[in-house]
Amino acid sequence: MSLIVQKYGGTSVANPERIRNVARRVARYKAMGHQIVVVVSAMSGETNKLIALAKEVMAEPDPRELDVMISTGEQVTIGMTALALMELGIKAKSYTGTQVKILTDDSHTKARILDIDEHNIKQDLNDGYVCVVAGFQGVDEFGNITTLGRGGSDTTGVALAAALKADECQIYTDVDGVYTTDPRVVPEARRLDKITFEEMLELASQGSKVLQIRSVEFAGKYKVKLRVLSSFEDEGDGTLITFEEENKDSEMEEPIISGIAFNRDEAKIIVLGVPDKPGIAYQILGPIADANIDVDMIIQNTGADGTTDFTFTVHKNEMGKALAVLRDKVQNHINAREISGDDKIAKVSVVGIGMRSHVGIASQMFRTLAEEGINIQMISTSEIKIAVVIDEKYMELAVRVLHKAFELEES
Amino acid sequence: MSLIVQKYGGTSVANPERIRNVARRVARYKAMGHQIVVVVSAMSGETNKLIALAKEVMAEPDPRELDVMISTGEQVTIGMTALALMELGIKAKSYTGTQVKILTDDSHTKARILDIDEHNIKQDLNDGYVCVVAGFQGVDEFGNITTLGRGGSDTTGVALAAALKADECQIYTDVDGVYTTDPRVVPEARRLDKITFEEMLELASQGSKVLQIRSVEFAGKYKVKLRVLSSFEDEGDGTLITFEEENKDSEMEEPIISGIAFNRDEAKIIVLGVPDKPGIAYQILGPIADANIDVDMIIQNTGADGTTDFTFTVHKNEMGKALAVLRDKVQNHINAREISGDDKIAKVSVVGIGMRSHVGIASQMFRTLAEEGINIQMISTSEIKIAVVIDEKYMELAVRVLHKAFELEES
Repeated sequence: MSLIVQKYGGTSVANPERIRNVARRVARYKAMGHQIVVVVSAMSGETNKLIALAKEVMAEPDPRELDVMISTGEQVTIGMTALALMELGIKAKSYTGTQVKILTDDSHTKARILDIDEHNIKQDLNDGYVCVVAGFQGVDEFGNITTLGRGGSDTTGVALAAALKADECQIYTDVDGVYTTDPRVVPEARRLDKITFEEMLELASQGSKVLQIRSVEFAGKYKVKLRVLSSFEDEGDGTLITFEEENKDSEMEEPIISGIAFNRDEAKIIVLGVPDKPGIAYQILGPIADANIDVDMIIQNTGADGTTDFTFTVHKNEMGKALAVLRDKVQNHINAREISGDDKIAKVSVVGIGMRSHVGIASQMFRTLAEEGINIQMISTSEIKIAVVIDEKYMELAVRVLHKAFELEES
Repeated sequence: MSLIVQKYGGTSVANPERIRNVARRVARYKAMGHQIVVVVSAMSGETNKLIALAKEVMAEPDPRELDVMISTGEQVTIGMTALALMELGIKAKSYTGTQVKILTDDSHTKARILDIDEHNIKQDLNDGYVCVVAGFQGVDEFGNITTLGRGGSDTTGVALAAALKADECQIYTDVDGVYTTDPRVVPEARRLDKITFEEMLELASQGSKVLQIRSVEFAGKYKVKLRVLSSFEDEGDGTLITFEEENKDSEMEEPIISGIAFNRDEAKIIVLGVPDKPGIAYQILGPIADANIDVDMIIQNTGADGTTDFTFTVHKNEMGKALAVLRDKVQNHINAREISGDDKIAKVSVVGIGMRSHVGIASQMFRTLAEEGINIQMISTSEIKIAVVIDEKYMELAVRVLHKAFELEES
């Protein structure tokens, strides 16, 4: 007998028919003798509908009241899921975030989980109930309803699995696992049976939007065994997300590269002709951070004439804001020659925990791109990934040739 | 400065525009220096939509889970109402039943309020907030969400007014007060400035569906000053519902009859030729009560031949069930000659606290009906009403001639 937390996203509970499907899957696991906790999101579209309603009465809705409203989305789904289970003759009981209680800080609409009281759920599980918990929501120390922000239902699932010391946290979504890259770009993309947390983080943050990053970090921190599965197929074991440590012995058998990630959400900001002296990076990025603009890649090249070029990337939506900050507060101050932005770029990353022990991955990546005549504008590396920025029009081509070059279609 | 509880029903908060209207009215009262607690229902139609969703996954939804689902209707409205108030620059804060906390028993879908913790609301009122409370819902001692049953938002308003010792509980609805009868039947019907609780109870239970009966009982018990007003008009003081005691001195000036109530929701069950001996009423009505069928009027006539006819009324929807119970379990047992039902009836009542001290009301009522050739099938009286059952086709005619006979159109 295992204790399994199953999390179902908005598309998996989009209507009564799909909720009945969820109930049937839970029933199968229950019949195998497992204890099951189900975490559900709001029916897809509901949260946006509630936000739109809020905006009709207040242009910029107060976050506390917004949370009161949007938390009702999951509350409807937990009731329906519990009812669908009962209709199959299974004992079931729903829990709101308040009822669990999932204690969070008071940062409405983006709260962080501080503690989970697992007592009542444990007791109900032992009494034979399936516990159906509302994802995405919690309660602060004063009883105010909070939400964890977009995608927060994944985090609820992982946090519950950690608190209950569950054997596995299964994340059901509309894809049947994590792929070597997006199958819409590379039809030969292959589902990975296993992937490490670190690789998953890189793949997720780079645009493989299977799991919410925070939930993966959370799972890593609390050593929760995470599995991504499709809620629309009954076959298949999905992709298991493992801790790197577990794989140490078998490292030699691990593939060097696990996948190719990509996104075109970023824009490049170039500060040209900056005096090459200490403190310049802080003088440029300090005001950007003060304006609450997230920065991803940062590159500084030293030129021959005692000046340097400083380049970094931000989200496309914030390019205008970042340029304004630099022109208002930085350009004259640091005596930069020119400041410009480019949002016609894409980032393509080769990700793999195995690359640490293999030389030559970078050179193979650069050669492959060069052979196709794709110019590399920026390079950034970490222990387990190499990311390049290229002209966005070459993005799909780059992903396809890299996927082939690293033989990812072969299992 | 007064403390006023204002309750707005489903049609008053049916959409964002109406919620903005509610916020504007609250703002006007706030500007007068009053402390305001707002109680809101779900947007009209929402509760039925949620019940339909529940029934899609479970034919007869479990009441605990149904309450989890339907309580979200009011939760959305409190958030929206608080936001609409903030948009007007007014400090506002929403409360679910759990957050207040409105403690109820555990009778899901028809829970009764046991206690209200007024502490937090008092504090927020003193801090200048308008408190927006979800009607219709509460929480049991174990933290389970409960609902008070249909119309329960009125009860929430009155119970809060009692707990907070409010100066007045204003019930906003789609009519501008209590009328001498339904203006759709009698265009001359007149709005009453004042009515006693007892009269209100009779008028409400007889079909003047302005206020939920339980809330009126509650208001009477806790001596809450209740006022019915229209949420669609800014003028007018509505109808004040008073305690009889307050009116003792001015009784002579009170009108004898305050209104004519009517409904066609009942059916008549006739048990003919029953042996006239002790215990017969219990033998007939015991099995009816055991089957959870509510009985309204009960009449027994003694015949000349040692047998009696026993007649009572039930809700139309339950006539079939009641007949089946009688034929299965009662008829042979008590040796009744015949059992029959008639659902083509209407009940018309003349209501007035003043009739206790005036003879002749009954005879005037019967004469008026006789003059129109309307046959009376059953009669039932109480201290403050006389009700008759007639053929339903004469209902409107009876209401009109009685309204005129008792000169209710004149103020």
